[in-house]
Amino acid sequence: MIYLDHAAATPVAPEVLAAMQPYFTDKFHNPSALYLASRGLKNDLEEARAEVALVLGARAPEIVFTSGASEANNLAIHGVMRQYPDGEMLVSAIEHESVWQPSEHYKKTALPVNSKAMVSPEALVRAVSDKTVLISVMYASNEVGTIEPIAKIAAEINRIRQSRQKRGVKIPLLLHCDASQAANYLDLHVSRLGVDLMSLNGGKMYGPKQSGCLYVKTGVKLLPLVEGGGQEWGLRSGTESLALIIGFTAALKRTQAQKKAEATRVERLRDQFWEGVQTIFPKAERQGDARSCLPNILHVRFPGQDNERLVMELDELGVQAAAGSACKASSDEPSRVLLAIGMSANGAGETLRFSLGELTDQKAIDYAIKCLSKILKSKVNGYAQVRI
Amino acid sequence: MIYLDHAAATPVAPEVLAAMQPYFTDKFHNPSALYLASRGLKNDLEEARAEVALVLGARAPEIVFTSGASEANNLAIHGVMRQYPDGEMLVSAIEHESVWQPSEHYKKTALPVNSKAMVSPEALVRAVSDKTVLISVMYASNEVGTIEPIAKIAAEINRIRQSRQKRGVKIPLLLHCDASQAANYLDLHVSRLGVDLMSLNGGKMYGPKQSGCLYVKTGVKLLPLVEGGGQEWGLRSGTESLALIIGFTAALKRTQAQKKAEATRVERLRDQFWEGVQTIFPKAERQGDARSCLPNILHVRFPGQDNERLVMELDELGVQAAAGSACKASSDEPSRVLLAIGMSANGAGETLRFSLGELTDQKAIDYAIKCLSKILKSKVNGYAQVRI
Repeated sequence: MIYLDHAAATPVAPEVLAAMQPYFTDKFHNPSALYLASRGLKNDLEEARAEVALVLGARAPEIVFTSGASEANNLAIHGVMRQYPDGEMLVSAIEHESVWQPSEHYKKTALPVNSKAMVSPEALVRAVSDKTVLISVMYASNEVGTIEPIAKIAAEINRIRQSRQKRGVKIPLLLHCDASQAANYLDLHVSRLGVDLMSLNGGKMYGPKQSGCLYVKTGVKLLPLVEGGGQEWGLRSGTESLALIIGFTAALKRTQAQKKAEATRVERLRDQFWEGVQTIFPKAERQGDARSCLPNILHVRFPGQDNERLVMELDELGVQAAAGSACKASSDEPSRVLLAIGMSANGAGETLRFSLGELTDQKAIDYAIKCLSKILKSKVNGYAQVRI
Repeated sequence: MIYLDHAAATPVAPEVLAAMQPYFTDKFHNPSALYLASRGLKNDLEEARAEVALVLGARAPEIVFTSGASEANNLAIHGVMRQYPDGEMLVSAIEHESVWQPSEHYKKTALPVNSKAMVSPEALVRAVSDKTVLISVMYASNEVGTIEPIAKIAAEINRIRQSRQKRGVKIPLLLHCDASQAANYLDLHVSRLGVDLMSLNGGKMYGPKQSGCLYVKTGVKLLPLVEGGGQEWGLRSGTESLALIIGFTAALKRTQAQKKAEATRVERLRDQFWEGVQTIFPKAERQGDARSCLPNILHVRFPGQDNERLVMELDELGVQAAAGSACKASSDEPSRVLLAIGMSANGAGETLRFSLGELTDQKAIDYAIKCLSKILKSKVNGYAQVRI
């Protein structure tokens, strides 16, 4: 099978799985116990936290391990907003559902994006009021791949903070960033980005699913979603899974170490794939911002083609791709994100997302183009089904 | 090492780990995607859910997979109580922190227990008001092992429900049960128990940590803690980890299949251990209810002895035991549960919990008694340290 859905899920890398294995059976103790074996695990846990912090240019106490980015996003939003009943949120229109839905519980302004899914820092500044407490803009779109100008946004926010300070406005103004899709290719240094809260997801970076973390800048106060034993600085209770935490940490270190080489490699393949698609189907329209796009994502509209049908036909030939965002369990409605970039419901139903990654090589791309060609030509010629 | 802290954590059983392995690397896809491999995973997920339901005598849609019992307990409590701003809770005084702390957000009555940590169904009935929405009583105490009369409590609650119905009281009255410690030895059939909500924890039953589920009886409405992609009936968003879910399911089936034999085996060893302890240290006092106790737990007060010191001395000789509940990350305060059964703070500081399990055999018990004997005798003789 040719897997072109890395944005939806990635396999656990062999060396990541190897790092996890001892923690299922030998090093299984509860890190909160008093005996030496447990204290050893507690050390492993805190070492992992320090390693994650190092990758992010953060401090260890700023890292909260979670069960993934959905939980991290919910924790960031409810954790901040429940403290400010009169506070407001500003949320980009293309955020993932795990940002969008929690934000619906508060007074919220949706920040429009342009047709390339780009947030404008200037428009963002205009939308901030003195009641705005939390702004959430993702690092890169999981659907169309557009990379958002996080550092510029953070700089603008900083200016607003300074103005607030002068004017005696006391409530905080925080920037949260869901970096789930960015970790394999982009810089995650929190001070270069200027974020106050940042979510990461192990399951999208060749680590285990249900692993992740929330970066919480020193001084930012959060309320927990899950209380109990007081693990993770009281922000996330429950006996820690060292297997998941060590796996997440190994995956993050690994993917960040190879990010430049891997970005160059998949970008070349992605661009080649897009050229192939245009040759086969000249009416194909690429979505997102080609000048500021994750190197592994190609989101294409095939006018006149039903995307679910295309996914299934590709699958039959051995190519796995996505119709819209795979993260939404019920996928009947048109993608909110695609509507936000100005597509019609019909148009949204004609788009495929191809997301490349470590399982993608030259042969995979050649084969995928061949399959797409057969399917689309057969449609033009009126055939119902194709075999290669 | 002789591990006598199974109530704090268990190793993943080899066959459970084997069942999980394919889902890290080969079967890694996002179960929400449209291609065949994903639909296969979705099937595996729903099969796992049906298998869990079968063990519990429940229906598949009543099972919500979570990241463990702490999250399940929080979900049960907030999920119900946030719907009823005027509603009240009734919570046994010996609940785990992951029940106790969430319940602090609501108007709550703490239900006292007797000196053996037993909840009285009659006292519970008297404490219920027409505003009570949710009652939480654990199946068995993680600290002293007392098994609570859940079925009797459920029968009383049912009578109150009928009386409410006659009197036209509209709000629900629900029984939540944290069964984390019970799963290895006791019947989990939800209709025999009569519970409306029940939490289970994979990490305490030779499954992976950060796995678990909440049973939610048909008709019980919950609000989610984590929103997003809408997984788990919209009650728990985030890309599912099939590895954790399959691991949890395999562990639950395995432990429930062997529960009677294993209960008999560890109970014999536990009783033998207690006899040994009494011989060594006649002033030792067993906590909890010997007639209604988990077969694997022995909670003992050693008057005049500091429990943290004992834990460390035992550890040095190769025996791992717990001082108080290991689930509380910050363990400086005396256990709220031990205070609730009438112990003084000093007394609580003299208790050890030994919890047996699959790693415990005759040799382990013989050795543990030998170690305890050396330590306690040396103390009597005034020696600071012992070597075996």
